[in-house]
Amino acid sequence: MTEKSVYNSDTIIALATPSGIGAIGVIRLSGPDAINLVNEVFGGKDLSIQHSHTIHFGTIKDGKQVLDEVLVSIFIGPRSYTRENVVEISTHGSAFIIESIIKLLIRKGARPANPGEFTLRAFLNGQLDLSQAEAVADLIASNSQASHQVAMQQMRGGFSSELKHLRDQLIHFASMIELELDFGEEDVEFANRDDLKGLIYQIQRILHRLIQSFEQGNVMKNGVPVVIAGKPNVGKSTLLNALLNEERAIVSEIAGTTRDTVEDHMIIGGINFRFIDTAGIRDTEDIIEAKGVERTHAKIKEAKLIVYLVDPEQNVDKIVEQVRYLDSLGIPFLTVVNKKDLANADFLERLESEVGGQKSEAGSPKSDVRSPKSEAGSMNDDDQTSDLIFISARNKEGIDLLKQEILRKVNLHSINTDDVLVSNIRHLEALQKTEESLNRVLQNIDQPITSDFLASDIKQALYYLGEITGQVTTDDLLETIFSKFCIGK
Amino acid sequence: MTEKSVYNSDTIIALATPSGIGAIGVIRLSGPDAINLVNEVFGGKDLSIQHSHTIHFGTIKDGKQVLDEVLVSIFIGPRSYTRENVVEISTHGSAFIIESIIKLLIRKGARPANPGEFTLRAFLNGQLDLSQAEAVADLIASNSQASHQVAMQQMRGGFSSELKHLRDQLIHFASMIELELDFGEEDVEFANRDDLKGLIYQIQRILHRLIQSFEQGNVMKNGVPVVIAGKPNVGKSTLLNALLNEERAIVSEIAGTTRDTVEDHMIIGGINFRFIDTAGIRDTEDIIEAKGVERTHAKIKEAKLIVYLVDPEQNVDKIVEQVRYLDSLGIPFLTVVNKKDLANADFLERLESEVGGQKSEAGSPKSDVRSPKSEAGSMNDDDQTSDLIFISARNKEGIDLLKQEILRKVNLHSINTDDVLVSNIRHLEALQKTEESLNRVLQNIDQPITSDFLASDIKQALYYLGEITGQVTTDDLLETIFSKFCIGK
Repeated sequence: MTEKSVYNSDTIIALATPSGIGAIGVIRLSGPDAINLVNEVFGGKDLSIQHSHTIHFGTIKDGKQVLDEVLVSIFIGPRSYTRENVVEISTHGSAFIIESIIKLLIRKGARPANPGEFTLRAFLNGQLDLSQAEAVADLIASNSQASHQVAMQQMRGGFSSELKHLRDQLIHFASMIELELDFGEEDVEFANRDDLKGLIYQIQRILHRLIQSFEQGNVMKNGVPVVIAGKPNVGKSTLLNALLNEERAIVSEIAGTTRDTVEDHMIIGGINFRFIDTAGIRDTEDIIEAKGVERTHAKIKEAKLIVYLVDPEQNVDKIVEQVRYLDSLGIPFLTVVNKKDLANADFLERLESEVGGQKSEAGSPKSDVRSPKSEAGSMNDDDQTSDLIFISARNKEGIDLLKQEILRKVNLHSINTDDVLVSNIRHLEALQKTEESLNRVLQNIDQPITSDFLASDIKQALYYLGEITGQVTTDDLLETIFSKFCIGK
Repeated sequence: MTEKSVYNSDTIIALATPSGIGAIGVIRLSGPDAINLVNEVFGGKDLSIQHSHTIHFGTIKDGKQVLDEVLVSIFIGPRSYTRENVVEISTHGSAFIIESIIKLLIRKGARPANPGEFTLRAFLNGQLDLSQAEAVADLIASNSQASHQVAMQQMRGGFSSELKHLRDQLIHFASMIELELDFGEEDVEFANRDDLKGLIYQIQRILHRLIQSFEQGNVMKNGVPVVIAGKPNVGKSTLLNALLNEERAIVSEIAGTTRDTVEDHMIIGGINFRFIDTAGIRDTEDIIEAKGVERTHAKIKEAKLIVYLVDPEQNVDKIVEQVRYLDSLGIPFLTVVNKKDLANADFLERLESEVGGQKSEAGSPKSDVRSPKSEAGSMNDDDQTSDLIFISARNKEGIDLLKQEILRKVNLHSINTDDVLVSNIRHLEALQKTEESLNRVLQNIDQPITSDFLASDIKQALYYLGEITGQVTTDDLLETIFSKFCIGK
């Protein structure tokens, strides 16, 4: 267990920008010698006497050889990301130049940074708490409005200041109770039991809300798993492409990048959806037949939504049978009729009467939107019968409506919430353990037992709460968290 | 034809760092409104009243929504890369965040930059001449010490200041001769013909040196094409891997990157070598048999070096026959005996006596190094008989010696030259055309012809010289040059 302390006295270096060819690359150093090391190889002003937050043009020289013309940014600790001296060298974006400069500065005494080591130092030096540091990695990985929002909110303080405040109060009670223990037999009560109960109830309410928020926070961060089911050639990949097309165009046009979009991830309404490839379902005409297949079954169970794509040329009885099966799973689903132009009156009539949902082809479903605030992430039980939606994937008709229905079904339509959401499984587990410890405190508080039990459970709760914000850490925990970061952050 | 002039009054924006996940991304804006546009969306200090070359921490906000916490660097024109106002926004390296911020600033009035548009503006605003601007792209693309050095030297002024000075003197003569034309019949000579000749000789000497330097400059920039020949299973790919291994390790270890090294490009002694895949040679046991194959032949002719890999189990007569054929091509080549442990005394004796080269297995060939200064890029004719080199590719024996011999054979061993080298085919052509025009001036100068011919040829020379540095440009030329840049530079 590490309490915050002065960290390594060495100076670390890494490329902070992605590798690859670009106009510029940024090499970052942090540590007591950052400015002096760069100054040694810098042709230009004396960097050691410059103000913080200033930029200086010059050359990086290896002996007489000019490696590059660069801009050097100076940040004097504690006014920096890590609270140490930080230098950023903005170079021409050539891998050769970047390597040469990094090698040169390593020769001069810098050390290659480990993954996440800059942010680890920011944490150890008190710039960020642990949940904020974790949010930095989430922020970099964020690829949708929803995941961005969750990470940003967590990085900017999120629930950690709230938790810290409550933890401080709990610490107060813990010390009062410890004091009682010191007085041994004397049966004094420094800690008012009613006040303690009041505080615990207050903490429990917040814990409950945070734990409840995980389901939503998690899908906002990691994406909503959706299974697209249907017989072969019903148009599943045409549908995926139709859903995908607009988003793709935006990405490559604006940022000048060609992001490797995996076909079955896409962003709808700012939320990342993962369309799951269930080989079993994809290859089998009849979902009921496939239900023996264990793996397919498991995938369907993971889904937050099933999109069941049908074709007007299919047998209506079969469709109805499958809709009933899907209904029995307890997972929200949409029955989507593709190739709608081929649907004859008989097909439509029978399907609508048997499946029972309203035929949606126009009109905004917005009036039906549920606030994620009121029932964070819980799927609404009264809406599990399939809605019928008619589209033509090939002609891109009905696609917008389908998107709206998908958002409505997963109950995440409105993501413009300022609510604090937990999205990190580590935090969820710590919150749950805190809740359990506090439940034990509440169970015991009115019992005629000695204060040690109370003190022990409160300490457990403090420990778990502290793990979230990093007021309590272990080297293993830090290792686990920061090894997932990229180098240079 | 464009003379330098005030450029667009709009403000451009682009991602300046490579796309992909990294700790940070840098978005760059240039133009009169760069600072004001960013200021509009910046949560923090008033950026419009800050000093140049300062850095400011704050948020980028789209309405109330915080897109990111960023560092904003301010450069007030003309103290910037483009000589316009420039702002660099250092964001968390998430594609989503970067896109969001770029989109936001485009909504506020910025325009997505074209490829190379920042550097184009730097050129049009007189920050760089054209050959320097071209060197920026070369610098970014540089992947070896040699290509880096050529590009760096060109970016830092290279031959352009020299050319500009000579061009100015030539302009002086041109105007004197034009003046003579104005006086028509009067037979005056304002331009001293001997002085003019002296100047032209001086220019020709420099032109000649620069044109001669192209062969070396070009291979330093684009790599040395090497053909590895030999029958199947003689160990060609084992040899390539043995040559490649060390370099690779350095790349991935230091920069924390995994560069996609194409197997048949590698850097030896700071120079990029392109090992050419000649399917014909690779698949044919006998090079002589393959010589009918047109394509293979062409590839061999491109090579600056042939490495002919043989196996002690091959028929010595066949080997000797092929060595004679290779010798007849006039391209430097090395005969390399792989699996040297398998070579018996008879094989060695016969090969050495027939092929005639010295057996090199140790000892430094450095004493034999030719300075590229003295015979820039020309291959030394007296050294075309094959040297015999004995290696074991599998056991990595003799590899260092082979590297030294490769460098020696291509005559580029020493690249620590301060010589000005031309590496750009556009510059070469302009230099050659200048030379031709000046040759015509010299031919005519002593002839009893009117001054118009002289004036016209001098103007031609001025035009071509000006094309190199960009004192003369056309929109087409600029388009051709800058469209090859990456976006954001």
